[in-house]
Amino acid sequence: MNLQKRIEELNPISSLYNQDFLLTWKKSGSDLRLVMEIASILKEMRHQNISPRVFDSGLAVSIFRDNSTRTRFSYASAANMLGLTVQDMDETKSQIAHGETVRETANMISFLSDFIGIRDDMYLGEGHKYMEEVSKALDEGFEKEVLPQRPGLINLQCDMDHPTQSMADALHLREHFGSFEELRGKKIVMSWAYSPSYGKPLSVPQGIIALMSRFGMHVELCHPEGYNLIPEIIDVAKNNSRNTDGTFKISHSMEDAMKDADIVYPKSWAPFHIMEQRTELLKKSDKQGLADLEQSCLAENAKFKNWEYDAKKMKLTKNGKALYMHCLPADISGVSCKEGEVSADVFEKFRLQTYIEAGYKPYIIAAMMFAYKFEHPALALKEILGLKMNRVGM
Amino acid sequence: MNLQKRIEELNPISSLYNQDFLLTWKKSGSDLRLVMEIASILKEMRHQNISPRVFDSGLAVSIFRDNSTRTRFSYASAANMLGLTVQDMDETKSQIAHGETVRETANMISFLSDFIGIRDDMYLGEGHKYMEEVSKALDEGFEKEVLPQRPGLINLQCDMDHPTQSMADALHLREHFGSFEELRGKKIVMSWAYSPSYGKPLSVPQGIIALMSRFGMHVELCHPEGYNLIPEIIDVAKNNSRNTDGTFKISHSMEDAMKDADIVYPKSWAPFHIMEQRTELLKKSDKQGLADLEQSCLAENAKFKNWEYDAKKMKLTKNGKALYMHCLPADISGVSCKEGEVSADVFEKFRLQTYIEAGYKPYIIAAMMFAYKFEHPALALKEILGLKMNRVGM
Amino acid sequence: MNLQKRIEELNPISSLYNQDFLLTWKKSGSDLRLVMEIASILKEMRHQNISPRVFDSGLAVSIFRDNSTRTRFSYASAANMLGLTVQDMDETKSQIAHGETVRETANMISFLSDFIGIRDDMYLGEGHKYMEEVSKALDEGFEKEVLPQRPGLINLQCDMDHPTQSMADALHLREHFGSFEELRGKKIVMSWAYSPSYGKPLSVPQGIIALMSRFGMHVELCHPEGYNLIPEIIDVAKNNSRNTDGTFKISHSMEDAMKDADIVYPKSWAPFHIMEQRTELLKKSDKQGLADLEQSCLAENAKFKNWEYDAKKMKLTKNGKALYMHCLPADISGVSCKEGEVSADVFEKFRLQTYIEAGYKPYIIAAMMFAYKFEHPALALKEILGLKMNRVGM
Repeated sequence: MNLQKRIEELNPISSLYNQDFLLTWKKSGSDLRLVMEIASILKEMRHQNISPRVFDSGLAVSIFRDNSTRTRFSYASAANMLGLTVQDMDETKSQIAHGETVRETANMISFLSDFIGIRDDMYLGEGHKYMEEVSKALDEGFEKEVLPQRPGLINLQCDMDHPTQSMADALHLREHFGSFEELRGKKIVMSWAYSPSYGKPLSVPQGIIALMSRFGMHVELCHPEGYNLIPEIIDVAKNNSRNTDGTFKISHSMEDAMKDADIVYPKSWAPFHIMEQRTELLKKSDKQGLADLEQSCLAENAKFKNWEYDAKKMKLTKNGKALYMHCLPADISGVSCKEGEVSADVFEKFRLQTYIEAGYKPYIIAAMMFAYKFEHPALALKEILGLKMNRVGM
Repeated sequence: MNLQKRIEELNPISSLYNQDFLLTWKKSGSDLRLVMEIASILKEMRHQNISPRVFDSGLAVSIFRDNSTRTRFSYASAANMLGLTVQDMDETKSQIAHGETVRETANMISFLSDFIGIRDDMYLGEGHKYMEEVSKALDEGFEKEVLPQRPGLINLQCDMDHPTQSMADALHLREHFGSFEELRGKKIVMSWAYSPSYGKPLSVPQGIIALMSRFGMHVELCHPEGYNLIPEIIDVAKNNSRNTDGTFKISHSMEDAMKDADIVYPKSWAPFHIMEQRTELLKKSDKQGLADLEQSCLAENAKFKNWEYDAKKMKLTKNGKALYMHCLPADISGVSCKEGEVSADVFEKFRLQTYIEAGYKPYIIAAMMFAYKFEHPALALKEILGLKMNRVGM
Repeated sequence: MNLQKRIEELNPISSLYNQDFLLTWKKSGSDLRLVMEIASILKEMRHQNISPRVFDSGLAVSIFRDNSTRTRFSYASAANMLGLTVQDMDETKSQIAHGETVRETANMISFLSDFIGIRDDMYLGEGHKYMEEVSKALDEGFEKEVLPQRPGLINLQCDMDHPTQSMADALHLREHFGSFEELRGKKIVMSWAYSPSYGKPLSVPQGIIALMSRFGMHVELCHPEGYNLIPEIIDVAKNNSRNTDGTFKISHSMEDAMKDADIVYPKSWAPFHIMEQRTELLKKSDKQGLADLEQSCLAENAKFKNWEYDAKKMKLTKNGKALYMHCLPADISGVSCKEGEVSADVFEKFRLQTYIEAGYKPYIIAAMMFAYKFEHPALALKEILGLKMNRVGM
């Protein structure tokens, strides 16, 4: 289908205008699909050398409270594509700031900013809370005419959700299987997997079960006992499944879960209760406590080294060839670590697929920005298509 | 008054073309007003979604020899608004470089640069000297055809002045009181205030007394004995006052000073003689000496904890409601520190006003750039208005 | 000659399209001249306020595995001139990554990137190898449709070559002597010089002898016994000289070499065998071994303090006034160090010339980008000239 037709068929109704993008489960299904379709259209425009540069100038602030390469590049690419310049806001990395500091800083960095992208995924109970504080500060700043415009907030990963990742993943599934309708009835397994590292955030598995449960799939969350996710998000996934005639199930055997799976997402994360303890210890700056916790957590992890996604487990999946997904970088046994989340041979089979999966993220972020800024995204896209500005070449 | 009329009424004579902006007292009163009016016009253009992008490309170099969030964002915003890209020049932060290194580096970073913004406020006797060295190196580079254009130098805070701050503050006063004429006869108190920190630069109080003394106000500088500013700048303020039929006074009681004040600016700074000792110790890399100096300075400071601007002191001001100003972040008692420059209730009353005050800085910097680059800024602004390029939207 | 004529006379045949720029000796002589002429044209356009902005958006990634100021600014300037935004890729500085990590990261940073500039000059046998790995990963990514375009790779200095430096130097010679034809028969001496520092890379002398041997010059490489360069590159220089009716010679007395030289390039570097040992020790993270090596290397260096280019040696050159070249910063005796590569009086004579020499680098990089992206660079330049977009001003 050509671009013009796709733009004409876009949902003309959007509730995304001037609304921060923090959690997928606070957005309607049609809005999520709108973002993904805009992303896909922007990707096609790029291929056709059409520039969607809707900003003549403007800043996109980034606040990374944790290291990041791919999300940083995705955000930079999205901003650049639309004509914005990224300005990093450097904070002492592990700082948990609240109150007046947040309120003031949010305004100080926003006078000429159109977006603020935040990554704050280290401390359970903190990341989303921080984003809400920033959001409120921006509301106040705009209402009281401190700010000439209300910058949009984009969650680049918090303790609860990782919407730019999960939506890139969902768009990958749509492209891979042909349509969202094709996903109906498919089985997707979000599985814990072994990793020799500690303290990996819960936001990816949480984001995946909360989003994939909206397409009528059979979603199975699988992990060793004790590696629970935030209960509230489990409820979100259950409700979503009910509302879309899908199913949601929690299980504790990787082998059993893999049976007949169409899609598998094996990835490590830290147990919920460990992350809770960790946040408390961090608040108290208890270094000894943190070191002890790390040791006991690694020892606990080591009991589950057999939670590796390998050729044997892959054979159990639908026709032995379920689509493997990962947010990258994966812990690949014998490559990036001795024993890890996935065997080298299985990863190599799907390596390029995971690269393609990652490639949707810049467009998802750009689409979020686009839908925030334009009340009628379809009209704005139509204008872009009409002008056909070259991205490269005069 | 609409934009067109404001542009037509701009002073057509400017001496700012191709002149660095280092110290407000080296500029004429009409040039300072021109910069502030251009800033105000650029701000209004932003509100009307008109892009003043006069550079198709070009770099704005930033050299921050001290940490900074708001000045960094202001500079980035100003550059971006006009079409320039910021390129940071990272130096070892505390390095005091002179001579060949400065001369060479100034040229190496300037081949395709339009501006260099420098913040170097840590060492008394150093910051301004460094900027003058850079300025001379740029002159030579341009004359000898090393550089295709002479990049403009903008002082983002030195040991003597902080012109982007003081001019944002002055523009805030103009907008708050209606006009520069309204400032005539008003009383402004630049007062020292207690802070539990050490070594705060003198450039803000110096910049404030040097600039505010140019509008016919009654300027009072108030501080405990020994917290002197650079004598040469006291003279500047005295002369300015004389020339504009205002007054300038130095006093040593916060309570007395606050009486009938229209505007108050309570802010901590380190005593002049301490800063001088500090520079000497830094040059010798005398760590023990510096640690000892810090202790004695903090002990000295602690004698003046009652220099807090609170509701009681505020009551003494004109009708009990003088405009409170601060360059932010303020040391707020019970919020950002135990005992500080201002009580929490008074700060909260003026919190949004201080945000608005800060919001002028990006436009002041952009106006400095604009006036440096265009011999006839009014004509250039007229062209921008004529073209009415959208900042957002195609 | 005016711009239009120069563009018309450009070689219409280019083999640079979609080809990484890693080593000058893998490029044809006519392609090298094409890059330099494009650089010179872009420089003239800048002087005439014509913007060659051929990208409406796009990223230019930079990976600096070693500190850099001038190359960083040159790359940023080149990208900016053409409309691209630099995005830094921060790695732990001394990390030698290979394999899966390189392959994956190369793709992750390239989804919307047009160029990747890499500086990796610290370890003999590593830098170029790393760039080739990145290059292959980009090839795969593009072929397998992970990447919508194949980003071009630009060598910003590796262990073997420093093409953006050597080509800026060659362009400087062309402009200084009038034409490449004028270089024929001239004597250029690439000489080792004393420096109190250790571990300086070999890529500049290697790049210089490999490139300058292509213009029919008499190239003499001069250094104390043991300060050899990579043998393979010596062969390159020998072959080049043979093919262009020039000569190539290695000698070991600075005084003798300087006799009748037209151009001299006195610069320090570490001996080849030391750099090899260093790489081995670094791979083993042998800190004590590295410290010992540094000591013995500095002691070895100290034997050759008389290898300083001074007025006496300058007198030996053709008419006592050979053109002095340096990639900067130079170790200037009595200025940047006690005893160094060049005496203060001689350096001062040529100081501005070395600045001018450095000023070609941004244009060389931009020309490399230009020739990578446009199959017919002459046509693209013609279009730019036709449009005459102002760089500054509406």
